[in-house]
Amino acid sequence: MKLTILGCYAATPRSLNNPTSQVLEIKSNLFLIDCGEGTQVQLRKQKIKFSRISHIFISHLHGDHFFGLPGLISTFRLLGRKTELHVYGPKGIKEAITLFLKLGDSWTNYPLLFHELDSMESEVIFQDDNVRVSTIPLEHRIYTNGFLFEEQIGERKLDVAAVAKYGVDKCYFQNIKSGKDVVLDNGQNIDNRLLSFDPPPPQSYAFCSDTQYTEQIIPLISEVDVLYHEATFLESERALAPKTKHSTAKEAATIAKKAKVGKLILGHYSTRYGSIDLFKEEAETIFPNVELADDGKGFEF
Amino acid sequence: MKLTILGCYAATPRSLNNPTSQVLEIKSNLFLIDCGEGTQVQLRKQKIKFSRISHIFISHLHGDHFFGLPGLISTFRLLGRKTELHVYGPKGIKEAITLFLKLGDSWTNYPLLFHELDSMESEVIFQDDNVRVSTIPLEHRIYTNGFLFEEQIGERKLDVAAVAKYGVDKCYFQNIKSGKDVVLDNGQNIDNRLLSFDPPPPQSYAFCSDTQYTEQIIPLISEVDVLYHEATFLESERALAPKTKHSTAKEAATIAKKAKVGKLILGHYSTRYGSIDLFKEEAETIFPNVELADDGKGFEF
Repeated sequence: MKLTILGCYAATPRSLNNPTSQVLEIKSNLFLIDCGEGTQVQLRKQKIKFSRISHIFISHLHGDHFFGLPGLISTFRLLGRKTELHVYGPKGIKEAITLFLKLGDSWTNYPLLFHELDSMESEVIFQDDNVRVSTIPLEHRIYTNGFLFEEQIGERKLDVAAVAKYGVDKCYFQNIKSGKDVVLDNGQNIDNRLLSFDPPPPQSYAFCSDTQYTEQIIPLISEVDVLYHEATFLESERALAPKTKHSTAKEAATIAKKAKVGKLILGHYSTRYGSIDLFKEEAETIFPNVELADDGKGFEF
Repeated sequence: MKLTILGCYAATPRSLNNPTSQVLEIKSNLFLIDCGEGTQVQLRKQKIKFSRISHIFISHLHGDHFFGLPGLISTFRLLGRKTELHVYGPKGIKEAITLFLKLGDSWTNYPLLFHELDSMESEVIFQDDNVRVSTIPLEHRIYTNGFLFEEQIGERKLDVAAVAKYGVDKCYFQNIKSGKDVVLDNGQNIDNRLLSFDPPPPQSYAFCSDTQYTEQIIPLISEVDVLYHEATFLESERALAPKTKHSTAKEAATIAKKAKVGKLILGHYSTRYGSIDLFKEEAETIFPNVELADDGKGFEF
């Protein structure tokens, strides 16, 4: 998986701080997560081909997470898009986007499909051969979901030396990659594990923004490889967190520790702080493997 | 008047080309004209104080002219605005903006007043002691207005030497500035023109975007000091202009010439052209006083 942060600052877009949006690449598919104002410019700056995005996931309907969506959808049309675009987001998103397009008398010339969410329980919202996406119900001021991306187990890797040694014909190779044993012409059964290697372990990524501290999400994100958890505040502004239903860096780290995740990426920083390094320092007092999101930064895992 | 171009390119926002938005300053009042996506970032880059904007004029409801409005209105709230904000724009704008705010359960904490326009005739939509704003009905694919800003005639300027010579008491100064004669204690009437100078001539600015070539607007913009007229295309793409209801640089210049305006500013360039200098060259074959809008550029008149 490759994660590119397009924006990771709270509230209003500024010259150098973009609101939430990120692109997750899984086996050549691009998933856009949230779409604050200016996302399309950030996509251009990162030289990400618009046509490769087919699925957009919107966590909640605060402006800093979706005000870039009408513009992006319009730009897809201007670029001559023909392929389906799927938008997953809270109930109401379809009416809002449709109204904006209708006012401009500008419909899409590609299929635009909305998948509106209103469940308070986690549910699988997308699945194909490569990835499964589930919601992570969060606790914010309005209805909000995080998203869990789980790679599906891939094909086994052929052991080229072993198939040569046993004289296995190449017509069996696809079966071997699918996990099947091989019966040779002499009737001998060769166990699949002698002919192939385990596939790379599937990776998982959980996006959790915006939310106050809630242990309800721990079973859903247990042992994920990478957790992006919002950290709007530091503990010095502790009192603001429950009031605005956001988290501190320490709270994000506590969730990461309790869920035994591999790595924690922090983001959604309030712009009141001089340096985002303070978020890392605070989180590392609780959990060791912390990285800081920043606009334009990439993570591979 | 001082005009600051925040964005002047057609269609989609790009890294270096912003969609339409401009700020017109008239005697310390700031008027925002159109509000494409990213306008609030452009305002910050130009170091324009958000709180000084009280009136926003939206020409039409294509995305590149108003998709920045929900974000700007939300940011005003986050900045603690208390004063009224007036938004003038086509019918439907109130429902759209209100829906976006409602979805985020985020209302404004300042009075937000919509003035919806649907007249096909020019009408005065704002007037105070300093300025009068009227609509300029344009011909585009959807209902569109340009806006004419006319400074009101200011106070006369006191002739300090003359009032001393005639021994006029300062209690008469305000009357003199308002154009009144003075009757001295000895009964002598002093003509106002002997005591004061004419005020600076009032300036006028007409914003006309987006529109196809239409001579209907000429009586409305006759002899304005500065005309901003869209020039999406060059004559080399002549056929596209009526089809998309946009203008070429030559057409914009023809309007400027026929309306006998003082200066023509071109903008709303299609991003298909390598250099915007071509627009100036083409327009200058028809009309001599042409300037090019560009993002961040200012004009004083």
